[in-house]
Amino acid sequence: MTTNTILPSFRVAGSRPDVWTMVNQATAECKVPPVSLSQGFFNYNPPKFVLDAAKKCIDDVSCNQYSHTRGRINLRNALSKAYSPLFNRKLNPETEIVVTAGANEGFYSVFAAYLNPGDEVILMEPFFDQYVSNVQMNGGVPVYVPMIPPKEGAERPVSAKEWKLDMNRLRAAITDKTKMIVINTPHNPLGKVFSEEELNEIADIVLEHNLLVVSDEVYDRLFYTPFVRLATLRPELFRHVITVGSGGKTFGCTGWRVGWIIGDESIINHSAAAHTRICFCVNSPLQEATAIAFEEADKVGYWDDYISSYKKRFSILAKAFDQLGIPYTIPDGSYYVMANFANVKMPENYPFPEHILSRPRDFRLCFWMLKEIGVATIPPTEFYTDEDASMAQDYLRFSFCKTYETLEEGAERLQKLNHFI
Amino acid sequence: MTTNTILPSFRVAGSRPDVWTMVNQATAECKVPPVSLSQGFFNYNPPKFVLDAAKKCIDDVSCNQYSHTRGRINLRNALSKAYSPLFNRKLNPETEIVVTAGANEGFYSVFAAYLNPGDEVILMEPFFDQYVSNVQMNGGVPVYVPMIPPKEGAERPVSAKEWKLDMNRLRAAITDKTKMIVINTPHNPLGKVFSEEELNEIADIVLEHNLLVVSDEVYDRLFYTPFVRLATLRPELFRHVITVGSGGKTFGCTGWRVGWIIGDESIINHSAAAHTRICFCVNSPLQEATAIAFEEADKVGYWDDYISSYKKRFSILAKAFDQLGIPYTIPDGSYYVMANFANVKMPENYPFPEHILSRPRDFRLCFWMLKEIGVATIPPTEFYTDEDASMAQDYLRFSFCKTYETLEEGAERLQKLNHFI
Repeated sequence: MTTNTILPSFRVAGSRPDVWTMVNQATAECKVPPVSLSQGFFNYNPPKFVLDAAKKCIDDVSCNQYSHTRGRINLRNALSKAYSPLFNRKLNPETEIVVTAGANEGFYSVFAAYLNPGDEVILMEPFFDQYVSNVQMNGGVPVYVPMIPPKEGAERPVSAKEWKLDMNRLRAAITDKTKMIVINTPHNPLGKVFSEEELNEIADIVLEHNLLVVSDEVYDRLFYTPFVRLATLRPELFRHVITVGSGGKTFGCTGWRVGWIIGDESIINHSAAAHTRICFCVNSPLQEATAIAFEEADKVGYWDDYISSYKKRFSILAKAFDQLGIPYTIPDGSYYVMANFANVKMPENYPFPEHILSRPRDFRLCFWMLKEIGVATIPPTEFYTDEDASMAQDYLRFSFCKTYETLEEGAERLQKLNHFI
Repeated sequence: MTTNTILPSFRVAGSRPDVWTMVNQATAECKVPPVSLSQGFFNYNPPKFVLDAAKKCIDDVSCNQYSHTRGRINLRNALSKAYSPLFNRKLNPETEIVVTAGANEGFYSVFAAYLNPGDEVILMEPFFDQYVSNVQMNGGVPVYVPMIPPKEGAERPVSAKEWKLDMNRLRAAITDKTKMIVINTPHNPLGKVFSEEELNEIADIVLEHNLLVVSDEVYDRLFYTPFVRLATLRPELFRHVITVGSGGKTFGCTGWRVGWIIGDESIINHSAAAHTRICFCVNSPLQEATAIAFEEADKVGYWDDYISSYKKRFSILAKAFDQLGIPYTIPDGSYYVMANFANVKMPENYPFPEHILSRPRDFRLCFWMLKEIGVATIPPTEFYTDEDASMAQDYLRFSFCKTYETLEEGAERLQKLNHFI
């Protein structure tokens, strides 16, 4: 009987448990279930018109078989119709749009299509953790540039606009190996919507160095301030920017795994080739249902309701923080809020497990809040390099894509913090 | 305005159009739509119990949000229940099963998890074309070993058993860079089910050289002869074989993109890590529906009906070939049949397009049959290296996962070949 181990590739060797698994495990171990404001999934169903669309598609023969690898033509047409006005150009559904297995497989495909070993990719801290592994799995080298937190972030509520990309560090980070920049707007976890001025500065760098941008705009329907798309700023940028979108974020069904990438044929073609190889095509019924959902959304006035409902959800948490005097970052987009717990004093000698003690303060805050206050959050230093992690060690990320009841319950539990401030 | 091109990675540079796109395009250009016996998708709906399961899941809140990255526990439990008896061991749903975005993303994840640049992977000709690109995208080097066609394949109907893996060439192909072997049983396009004797010879090589096997068993419910799984032959093989399965093939819904991989924790863990990074999780409603479908299938006697209906479908094509005197390979599994057209004489000076003329004879047979006989098939030399392509240049692959009406119509049209034999 052989005892030889089959060694894994460089891509997965040394993977450490992700923060989601960690928080979910700690949550499962709680005697009283915490209010989960951690992961960004909805704890309520998509609107009825979305569910009805899905059920209708299940009965359609063609919807249960393979789709075109670039996506069902009905969905590509719907995306063209929905996005052409937002991109100020007629998007060609045959050549400029590819449907992907969620936004995640969308950007994975772009990394696979463009990264050769050693190519550098600029990521902004805090980053969505999958960017790092997705770049590394494709042989790329992440290079990090932080968003500088507002100096008064521990003193007063600040605007997400006050988190500023360190443009000097961005310029200094460019080398002859730089191939791509990843931006995320509206931003998770900051809720920052990049301003036209900031995007123009990034655009100058992109065009000067002939870079490709992955613009992760999965929260593109959820903004509380004017939202500008990098790809639309100047005509030539369309050949440098692949915009990533998400049906799950748009229609409240993160489990459908329907995303898309949009860009000029010259940059989309290679990504489409990679996508074909990785998963061939995306699940058909929920693609077709997403196409119908786009059609219906305009009719029922979904988009305005969507934004106003999230403003209301945010206000429930904001009021709780205000009552406690806990400062937070007012999001300009997305359904996340970063709150600053610098002035919260955890009890001394609290019995933290070893894997929590070895991480920055936000991991202790997260663990203690979960166990003692009954509210689950996400520690944001997971989205930083060790060098820059201290910037965010007093923050916790709260998701507010939850029912009003869940948010009210969370707000009430948070008041227990009063004893620790 | 920049005119610089952003260069793609080695992974996608030089991709050529695949055979599916080529056949689909030629089909679309036909004035009279051909009977499509080309791609292996079903032109009828899954059984009602499968569709009902899907609609039920759409109404479940949790089924519309992210699933566990390894798959919904209900599906992993259903797979454990369904496969444990077939693997002669209790499969642990927590550690030995991962749900993937179709079988395709399943084996992509395994290649990503195990291949370092230059690692060699043995593929058997004819191969499923995605294996090649999936190996290459992950830096691996495909090494090809052919299945030798029966000498009398152009003279009489033969058994799929008569296609024999060239064991000498397999042994000679092993180097110190060999990392993996991919096998496919029941085999597409041959319909071959590897015998226990053949699998034992492969097992000796695998254990001697400490290799990993990807056993693509997506047609594992569709066999007309005893079916043996490599992973079950000897206890130690479970740590060397990752078995790939498919909900789409099993329940007639190729568009659901629900597949799975099964193997020992030591080899599944790394594949799970890669899968998490590539697409995070699989669409939730159709995972849950697949779990229910497994439960229901036993109750309604689905499996026996499934096999007998495919025997009947095959017999429609077999009768047509017999009438024409066209020899074919009698499949022992899967829903494909290879027919030999050596004795069919195409008209001289037929106006083939250039991209068809540059390929082996089966591409001309395929094109001419599509245009003149009105039947779409797949030319199998697409699944061979140029060196070995002549082995299959007189064959065409027919899919019989089609309605009886479609198959009867195809059989009738095939009789037009009478004028060319």
